[in-house]
Amino acid sequence: MPKSKIKIIPLGGHSEVGKNMLVLEYEEDIIIIDAGLMFPEEEMLGIDLVIPDITYLLERKDKVRGIVVTHGHEDHIGALPYILPQLSVPVYCTKLTEGLISVKLRERRTLAEADIRVIPPGGSFSLGKFNIEFFPVCHSIPDSVGLIIRTPIGTIVHTSDFKLDYTPVGCQPTDLSKLAQLAGEGVFLLLSDSTYAELPGYTPSERVVGEAIDRIVSDAKGRVIIATFSSLVSRIQQIMDVAAKHERKVFVIGHSMTETVRMAREFGYLKPPEGTLARLDELYNLPPEQMVIITTGTQGEPTSALVRMANQDHRQLHVMEGDTVVISATPIPGNEALIDRTINSLFRQGAVVLYDRIARVHVHGHASQEELKLILNLTKPKFFIPIHGEYRHLSMHAKLAESVGISPENIFILEDGDVLELNQQGGKKNGKVSASHVYVDGLSVGDIDSVILRDRKTLSKDGIVMVVIAVNRQNGKLVGRPDITSRGFVDIEDSKDMIEASRDLVAKVVNHGSEQTADWGFVSTKVRDALYKYYYEKTHRRPMILPVMVSV
Amino acid sequence: MPKSKIKIIPLGGHSEVGKNMLVLEYEEDIIIIDAGLMFPEEEMLGIDLVIPDITYLLERKDKVRGIVVTHGHEDHIGALPYILPQLSVPVYCTKLTEGLISVKLRERRTLAEADIRVIPPGGSFSLGKFNIEFFPVCHSIPDSVGLIIRTPIGTIVHTSDFKLDYTPVGCQPTDLSKLAQLAGEGVFLLLSDSTYAELPGYTPSERVVGEAIDRIVSDAKGRVIIATFSSLVSRIQQIMDVAAKHERKVFVIGHSMTETVRMAREFGYLKPPEGTLARLDELYNLPPEQMVIITTGTQGEPTSALVRMANQDHRQLHVMEGDTVVISATPIPGNEALIDRTINSLFRQGAVVLYDRIARVHVHGHASQEELKLILNLTKPKFFIPIHGEYRHLSMHAKLAESVGISPENIFILEDGDVLELNQQGGKKNGKVSASHVYVDGLSVGDIDSVILRDRKTLSKDGIVMVVIAVNRQNGKLVGRPDITSRGFVDIEDSKDMIEASRDLVAKVVNHGSEQTADWGFVSTKVRDALYKYYYEKTHRRPMILPVMVSV
Repeated sequence: MPKSKIKIIPLGGHSEVGKNMLVLEYEEDIIIIDAGLMFPEEEMLGIDLVIPDITYLLERKDKVRGIVVTHGHEDHIGALPYILPQLSVPVYCTKLTEGLISVKLRERRTLAEADIRVIPPGGSFSLGKFNIEFFPVCHSIPDSVGLIIRTPIGTIVHTSDFKLDYTPVGCQPTDLSKLAQLAGEGVFLLLSDSTYAELPGYTPSERVVGEAIDRIVSDAKGRVIIATFSSLVSRIQQIMDVAAKHERKVFVIGHSMTETVRMAREFGYLKPPEGTLARLDELYNLPPEQMVIITTGTQGEPTSALVRMANQDHRQLHVMEGDTVVISATPIPGNEALIDRTINSLFRQGAVVLYDRIARVHVHGHASQEELKLILNLTKPKFFIPIHGEYRHLSMHAKLAESVGISPENIFILEDGDVLELNQQGGKKNGKVSASHVYVDGLSVGDIDSVILRDRKTLSKDGIVMVVIAVNRQNGKLVGRPDITSRGFVDIEDSKDMIEASRDLVAKVVNHGSEQTADWGFVSTKVRDALYKYYYEKTHRRPMILPVMVSV
Repeated sequence: MPKSKIKIIPLGGHSEVGKNMLVLEYEEDIIIIDAGLMFPEEEMLGIDLVIPDITYLLERKDKVRGIVVTHGHEDHIGALPYILPQLSVPVYCTKLTEGLISVKLRERRTLAEADIRVIPPGGSFSLGKFNIEFFPVCHSIPDSVGLIIRTPIGTIVHTSDFKLDYTPVGCQPTDLSKLAQLAGEGVFLLLSDSTYAELPGYTPSERVVGEAIDRIVSDAKGRVIIATFSSLVSRIQQIMDVAAKHERKVFVIGHSMTETVRMAREFGYLKPPEGTLARLDELYNLPPEQMVIITTGTQGEPTSALVRMANQDHRQLHVMEGDTVVISATPIPGNEALIDRTINSLFRQGAVVLYDRIARVHVHGHASQEELKLILNLTKPKFFIPIHGEYRHLSMHAKLAESVGISPENIFILEDGDVLELNQQGGKKNGKVSASHVYVDGLSVGDIDSVILRDRKTLSKDGIVMVVIAVNRQNGKLVGRPDITSRGFVDIEDSKDMIEASRDLVAKVVNHGSEQTADWGFVSTKVRDALYKYYYEKTHRRPMILPVMVSV
């Protein structure tokens, strides 16, 4: 029996543990599973994206054998343009995933150096002492796979994001018999998707949505506009099939939707029924009852096609009375307010609007509790780690695992940066590696720190006041009156008196201070304190106060 | 038949039409229904509160007869401290509502001048040509009333926020027979709560929650910590009753919870079973299985007792393994992320956590579709205006009204500032009055405008760069090198080279500009443009750029 332990380290995701990146290390080999990004939380002001902290990997660069990507969603591929140039290792993924990764890398001009190897579902390859086999799983994007990872210590099953769908659309059902066979050989460790571990029962099949959309299109008297995620290729296929059935033509509107439809057709994942896809100029000629429009904007993104259509400022199409609008998605947490606003606008235009709260127009792509228990039962793992979820989801998934008979000491809830060392005898957490937020803001990666974010927070609340103080180089005395400018603090016109009074206050503080000492740091602190106190008294606001000295 | 029309003007709420304030005007009389506040939306940076725009009322001050308040929630009373001093008219409300209003007014030192008149449910009073009768309704705070408003044109029924609860806790059920009688006399206009018009079926009774909490407390091996809204007095009563039944003592923790419990007991709305309320020092002596803790923090507010308990920094109590924590509330839209974070923290401490997604620990206080139809059927109004909801809720409620037989031309969807003129013959929208957002930020009311908010938005995204340019008063030439300071833009140490280069750039622009003209406005614009372009090229960020000139 091998003496070495395997190390399991979740490195990305923060609120969702191990979702964006998971590291497996055994002796001299490291493999990385997924390299995704996370969208910034509300308090990360001005930040574009957040990517995993790969300090640990950079320190062990020669051990890293490759990056294995399970599917093409942003939270699994989005960090590749940033980390691939730093690690330069091959990427292993399925065909559609490769297509989507290439788009990302091309945008950041890092495609040329990339070594991407396409592995079909069912295929396998070795990276050092790890042998990896892809098995098909159902998820809300085609070509998703789970991983069977054979190691000297035992077999690891990593489900990635999945659900069980016995009547899937445009993808293979999750390969349950494969998993059952593995149980015969013995599964050492199961890593399984916890995203919907709060939800009792089973997740409905994608086909349910097709049926709902069929009824909606059949009832609609005018145009039907359906917004969904562009990566949800199975949904797009179903909409096209329904349109064809009701002798409507399909228009695809919006940049990312058009792009994905093009790629999915090219790769054979999307097959529009003959004659269904319309040319854009037919938008003005066809009668409304012969049109279905597929577009993006389900999250209320202000620049998306749907939001523009709702606000009457889209180039090609305005929503109007007689339209039926379907929002075939659920809100991504944090987007609720924008989506609600969009729905209100659509109603205001007189459209019939159908969305998840009032109609079954969306099903999600993750397993619910009964499916999770089934996977646990089928694979009968010795050890279990819930992944892909916030802490509460992991806790719930751990409880489910206990309920089907896995002993609590064999279940590990990890957080980002935790290092779990595991062998057949058992596991234990051994320290933590660097796993901070790495912020992408504009061109730069990682230069934004907590000081900058704290400053942005202060600025966003009560603005800034700048005090320019000209001081005589020789005697340290004030030259002229101090100047005060502000932004985001008060209305300058309304507050003239206060600003004038505060200029006098600064002059007093500076002249008094300069008698004691010419130390600018000292004077500047006194000016800041005096203004802070004065403005708070007058306004109960706390602007950032920035004294600048000019010596002349 | 009177020739005059009645005017109906919703004035507060914005996303939720007419929720915070509704104005009725008939000839020489105006009455105001509710005077609430709205919590700022995400993009209203730094704003504390938003109150209704009462320009229209101030212009007709001598016609305003009084403010009628339907219940004591913030979104119905919260603007009173701001508008009452401007209007100085009497306020009419029930007893508990009066207590809550007094607390608000005392905080802003405006209680002494206020004339608040307590009217019991069932009582009535006249304001000019309006006669107003309070009828009891069930809602998530005791002493809520709807209004029967008799006018020369006909009878108006205003439900305010309500649900039908045939087994309510601590309040009278909504008086249905009263409404049925009115139908006999003829109801001219119904204004009814649309908050949950999206929800099919019936809203469950408050008693359902009591039963769920009973099971939870009975199963719990350790302490039970229950967070809820402090105004949800019926919930607090149920928790106390359950605690007494299971021989546990109740601790009330958190400022607003303690205050409301005190007031509700004093006024007789809350009756803790004999010996149930514990003294705070017993917190350290009683065994965990004899304790129930009632507290606030259901919305994940960072300074609330629950969040502090979860993060192990509350003075009296830390959540630990063995605790059962119940979050007896639903997220107020916009608070989802904070609440999720709190739930994660509670799980991390090892507590069993029960919340609305996984257990029936909350029911809301608004009528669902079948209840709304029942009210429409009972009152048989000639005209109908859906109120208290975002546009989509109003639209849905309008559809419900159509479905029970009200003719579409007698249904009016109003937005804030719309003036509906109505008499027995029909109604029509006639113009719009001022109904903007009035922002409260610190001490001042209404001085924050869109410029300040836009500046705060810019500052929050990419920070600010200040450029101090000293110029010779005589010849307009630069004195020394321009100085550049930034906040929230880049890391100063990492970006030294860029900042130095931009100082040179400014010097070049100023010296070049000063040859052409000494106009500071012109030079300042050129400096701004040059830096904007330079920084964008280097960083892809767009900080606010603020050139300041000092002439010496």
